[in-house]
Amino acid sequence: MNRGVFITLEGGEGAGKSTNVPWIADYLRSHGKTVLVTREPGGTEVAEAIREVLLSPELPGMNADTELLLMFAARNEHLQTKILPALARGEWVICDRFTDATYAYQGYGRGIALSRIAALEQWVQGDVRPDYVILFDLDVATGMARAQARGRADRFEQEHAVFFERIRDGYLQRAGQMPARYPIIQAAQARVNVKEQLQQVLARIIAEKSV
Amino acid sequence: MNRGVFITLEGGEGAGKSTNVPWIADYLRSHGKTVLVTREPGGTEVAEAIREVLLSPELPGMNADTELLLMFAARNEHLQTKILPALARGEWVICDRFTDATYAYQGYGRGIALSRIAALEQWVQGDVRPDYVILFDLDVATGMARAQARGRADRFEQEHAVFFERIRDGYLQRAGQMPARYPIIQAAQARVNVKEQLQQVLARIIAEKSV
Repeated sequence: MNRGVFITLEGGEGAGKSTNVPWIADYLRSHGKTVLVTREPGGTEVAEAIREVLLSPELPGMNADTELLLMFAARNEHLQTKILPALARGEWVICDRFTDATYAYQGYGRGIALSRIAALEQWVQGDVRPDYVILFDLDVATGMARAQARGRADRFEQEHAVFFERIRDGYLQRAGQMPARYPIIQAAQARVNVKEQLQQVLARIIAEKSV
Repeated sequence: MNRGVFITLEGGEGAGKSTNVPWIADYLRSHGKTVLVTREPGGTEVAEAIREVLLSPELPGMNADTELLLMFAARNEHLQTKILPALARGEWVICDRFTDATYAYQGYGRGIALSRIAALEQWVQGDVRPDYVILFDLDVATGMARAQARGRADRFEQEHAVFFERIRDGYLQRAGQMPARYPIIQAAQARVNVKEQLQQVLARIIAEKSV
């Protein structure tokens, strides 16, 4: 049996990536693929427990390196117990955010050295990387407007615009380094147009993986 | 102000290391040192929360790599928030077990590749290593007998003797590679004799650090 295909969805808030997950899964299933949809911590008990430590409001001021180690601990558990077994069964795995988000948010956003993230990525993942990273790209102003419309304005205060610009730049830099693996969706466009772009990307991926 | 001195105590169960911690601290204080006695998770809230995940009986079957990442996450927090600040203040830090225990138990004991432990050690600690690792060495049979006398026979079932031999060998191998940094206490001897050995070791350390 062939190994499955590992696809991650990335992008800032308001870019529509989570909204489009069901449609992506349906499209792949309609083309005969068995699909596992997941996101960290992936429903594994260990990773959920780690997530609780990461998000606990009673533990402010956690050291940034500690946070990164915990993120990769949860990722390791998710990867080893859920993603890799599914890929080994030949399934297509759609994961809403993965290590690229760590590079974008912790690396480009918060300034942790990219080489330190890369070292943990290598330690945890070995040679495992997503086969494709579908990047939903959106200018920060539009993302802020969409998030405000969803009542999540608090996360998009004006003072944070610079932070979100850095995240967007980080994603685009990574996509620019490996364009064949990082299809970009122009997420500012109308919903129907985004679906058309996704359909083209997925058709290409299916074709490439059928060879 | 001079940086303080970082001393860790290592050894298998029944070797008397924890028993001798107060005496060691008193000896150093009587020689004018300010001493911080600690052990992982070191009383830091974040590290305690991580420890709870590690020890939770509701989470059996945790992936070995996840466990190692959590250990180093807790260690990072303990190191950054407690050990390094104390050393920077010029204090002598006595830590009951540290990274050598990870090499001995997870590496030599359970077979995790030493190079993978070394990679996380380097990531978390950079160049920080204990100035001295005082190794309480004891043959496994005597350690088992002492632990049984303390009513902890369950951890020393006969089937585990091989495991504890591997741990002892691991500690001795590390000590053999860096003998000046790893003073060995012959812990099978009578308590008064162990104190004499400790006194010699500590007098040497104080002398070396006074130069």
